[in-house]
Amino acid sequence: MKIEGKNPVRELLNSNRTIEKVILLNGTTDKELRQFQQKAVDKGIRVEFADKKTLDRISETGHHQGVIAIDTDFEYADLKETINKARQDGKDILFVVLDEILDPHNLGSIIRVAECAGATGVIIPNRRSALVNETVVRTSAGATAYVPVIKVPNLNQAIEEMKKENIWVYAADMDGEVMYNANLKGDIALIIGSEGSGIRDLTKKLCDGVISIPMYGKVNSLNASVSAAVVVYEAIRQRK
Amino acid sequence: MKIEGKNPVRELLNSNRTIEKVILLNGTTDKELRQFQQKAVDKGIRVEFADKKTLDRISETGHHQGVIAIDTDFEYADLKETINKARQDGKDILFVVLDEILDPHNLGSIIRVAECAGATGVIIPNRRSALVNETVVRTSAGATAYVPVIKVPNLNQAIEEMKKENIWVYAADMDGEVMYNANLKGDIALIIGSEGSGIRDLTKKLCDGVISIPMYGKVNSLNASVSAAVVVYEAIRQRK
Repeated sequence: MKIEGKNPVRELLNSNRTIEKVILLNGTTDKELRQFQQKAVDKGIRVEFADKKTLDRISETGHHQGVIAIDTDFEYADLKETINKARQDGKDILFVVLDEILDPHNLGSIIRVAECAGATGVIIPNRRSALVNETVVRTSAGATAYVPVIKVPNLNQAIEEMKKENIWVYAADMDGEVMYNANLKGDIALIIGSEGSGIRDLTKKLCDGVISIPMYGKVNSLNASVSAAVVVYEAIRQRK
Repeated sequence: MKIEGKNPVRELLNSNRTIEKVILLNGTTDKELRQFQQKAVDKGIRVEFADKKTLDRISETGHHQGVIAIDTDFEYADLKETINKARQDGKDILFVVLDEILDPHNLGSIIRVAECAGATGVIIPNRRSALVNETVVRTSAGATAYVPVIKVPNLNQAIEEMKKENIWVYAADMDGEVMYNANLKGDIALIIGSEGSGIRDLTKKLCDGVISIPMYGKVNSLNASVSAAVVVYEAIRQRK
């Protein structure tokens, strides 16, 4: 996978992720790009140089800013291992679970929110979902390097698994209890649906509860990443 | 201005905005497009028909879905009048003030959040800011038709004006008091800065207080529209 631009590459180089190589603009005098070179060399990562034309051609986002890193394929985390690790660390679990979020910008933005809020991880299904690609890494502002992203074969099965682990599973949807009145402390998972179709009925039925963001206007729906941010930070407030 | 696609046109037709004409796909059998026709006729709005090729050519977004409405220029609201109206209605004021938000997607998304949360209005400066255009209307999911958007010649002057009106002005920035501990009840204005550069120092100094979203990760910054949503909904929680 290609990671492009200064912010994402900086985050990548500061993380423990496996990097194949870093390609830098030939003859650059940019201070930060030269720091990337030093850092990559220090970490034993291969550094190559290319002219602007070549970088433009390799670039998939069009915003490389003189640096493109080639990552090995994104490594998804394992649900059971992530739960165990949080418990070993003595941390309350907070999973953000995405039901059919197809837009990579929304996925990236939600991963960013989850990282900033210190969530345990983001859970996505491996079908009918955006997967972690260059756009997601960029939109996440590099957060994909820090917060576990768990890809599961079946979302409903993952919910059952979490319930067996005593994680309380909430669906965030229109017809629920106002989130301020729900108890979002302890080990919880918050399911966010897509803007168009919400959370699927079968999935919603599996949940322990449904919570809603109060709406006072006429538009009555928020973008998926905005909804995720609002409910995740309500959980953070309660857990403080 | 052109309003394109079913959702934005539906919101527009349900609003009190002045519409010049509605252009529909010629010979359409789509139920909703025919409802738009009826609604426009009922409201005395001129209806025209065009083939797909013409609509594609007129379209600025490429997502017209068979309908384009031509609006008169967007009508911004007046700060003083908006304050007076809220007071007449006996409502606590909640303004969302944007300092140099240049991305129309962010502006649209924030207007949508403000509308859903029942905020009094969104305040933008008329320079160094995205203004309400087609992209903003679309990203706002039509919320531009419902929530007052106030364009001011000078943001700092508008802040002084609000302070004179006993509106408490908070800057949302990195180095403030954790928002959960601040008092966001009563008449308040929340200033949101751009993702890159935050709120300008001079503007921040004018504020009555600075509040922060707590950050627990390494990325440590949220997108402007996500930040706006989180602080606005914290205010909503406190005011309930």
